[in-house]
Amino acid sequence: MENNVITIHTKLISLLGDPLGQTFAPRMFNETFHRLGLDYLYFPIEVGNENLETIVKAIRCMHYVGFNVTKPNKIKILEYLDELDGLAEKIGSVNVVTVRDGVLKGYNTDGIGFVQSLLDETKMDLGEQTFLILGAGGASRAVSSTLAFRGAKKIYIVDSFEKASSTLAEDINHKIRPCAEYIEFSRPDIPELIKTSTVLINATGLGMYPDTEATPVEKKNLYRELFVCDLTYNPPRTRLLRDAEEVGCAVMNGIGMVVNQGIKGFALMTGEEEPNEIMNKVMQEIIGGKM
Amino acid sequence: MENNVITIHTKLISLLGDPLGQTFAPRMFNETFHRLGLDYLYFPIEVGNENLETIVKAIRCMHYVGFNVTKPNKIKILEYLDELDGLAEKIGSVNVVTVRDGVLKGYNTDGIGFVQSLLDETKMDLGEQTFLILGAGGASRAVSSTLAFRGAKKIYIVDSFEKASSTLAEDINHKIRPCAEYIEFSRPDIPELIKTSTVLINATGLGMYPDTEATPVEKKNLYRELFVCDLTYNPPRTRLLRDAEEVGCAVMNGIGMVVNQGIKGFALMTGEEEPNEIMNKVMQEIIGGKM
Repeated sequence: MENNVITIHTKLISLLGDPLGQTFAPRMFNETFHRLGLDYLYFPIEVGNENLETIVKAIRCMHYVGFNVTKPNKIKILEYLDELDGLAEKIGSVNVVTVRDGVLKGYNTDGIGFVQSLLDETKMDLGEQTFLILGAGGASRAVSSTLAFRGAKKIYIVDSFEKASSTLAEDINHKIRPCAEYIEFSRPDIPELIKTSTVLINATGLGMYPDTEATPVEKKNLYRELFVCDLTYNPPRTRLLRDAEEVGCAVMNGIGMVVNQGIKGFALMTGEEEPNEIMNKVMQEIIGGKM
Repeated sequence: MENNVITIHTKLISLLGDPLGQTFAPRMFNETFHRLGLDYLYFPIEVGNENLETIVKAIRCMHYVGFNVTKPNKIKILEYLDELDGLAEKIGSVNVVTVRDGVLKGYNTDGIGFVQSLLDETKMDLGEQTFLILGAGGASRAVSSTLAFRGAKKIYIVDSFEKASSTLAEDINHKIRPCAEYIEFSRPDIPELIKTSTVLINATGLGMYPDTEATPVEKKNLYRELFVCDLTYNPPRTRLLRDAEEVGCAVMNGIGMVVNQGIKGFALMTGEEEPNEIMNKVMQEIIGGKM
């Protein structure tokens, strides 16, 4: 009967974005709170840039310990915060905000979530890797900035929208470390660049449900020693990952990234330890349709 | 696992007041939603006059169907509403606000809750009753105004704070019906007024926990045919009600008023039918400590 014991002591967390019809963050968080016996309530607020300030002002008057931010508010939210974590500042966007004694501090755990799951999976030394990341949107920005921040040897950013991607490469080189290079998607030598890379990351969304036959890289350009990642988790095996497995590559989808960014955000907002085991289990149950 | 399935479709209701440490409204509402299988979430927001506007502005951007208002916001809230129900306007305070298509409309169900429970209990004709109400605060104002609105023959308002109580009597006489009379608490003929009254209502809070031996009327001034009400429900039998029972009076405490105002508010905010049976049962369980 936990849903009936909401009191003034119940600590609040929300997700601020629009649309939120597909999010499972409330289930992931509330079920974790339930299993840990913690008195928190997580609920979504469907809000865009226009009313974001109004909601943040109210959050400051309520019993919040933090909130998550997603599209289209990850950049806009910067205007309403009191403090910014170093990595979030370098990335230029925020997905987690902590509320402590009236101070709102922004973090970005999107990239950390990916890097954590990459290291869990492969134990690789980032300083020895050459990354080729496809796409230059928000997810790519968080992941490539965090890889640079954590010491990646080289990062090729491949995209067809020149301005966004070259800006991203410049931002990384100037604000973090000079390790990024923008590559125009139509360049004929991309197959050769893939051959010089050790990790390929699809951050374009190509292959995501419902367009599950789309892929950003032809199968013939993959090679067995390449580690292939897709930030998508729906479907769990995209066309790219299926092709890569057929070639003999080790692969990783986006589930670990999502769970790990949730775990990091959970710890930041609540001040509790990272609920690694429980949140992974809950996520498996949600993905597996058991909840 | 109902506490985990909060989504963007979940409709929100809050209670706005301060302090809210003693409120059981969230339990009463959430348990009723649970038993009816309705996708609503009720949670308290501890807020006073200062930040009330900030919260109301946010409520307008969120998935709210309404909210309850309690001390110290029942009058202040009038500044932020779009529409006002007739009775709430006459009482001059609001405890329920509905949100429909961006329009905030205020109601006052405090008095209706009492009158409903009085009629359920006694089937009396209000037009034949002379009420003597002790106290002239917010609860007295709601109850006596509603009694006047519903046709009470005569209402004596007895209080020692002359201004508040005479103002209340004047407001009733001018805005509703000329049936109220202010009586100064120290007047020596109060025992005679009690003898001419048919219903006595204690709205002073005297006798409420922890000061359970206090009472506003000496036992010797009660008579067997008087119907004696106490708006308190903690303890369920105040000193006044125990004295009255010993004299042979029929008595009524404040539980019915609280449940009935909850039922009316529930129906107004959700648009569902009045959950009379369920909410009465839930309230009995809460009071009985079974939840």
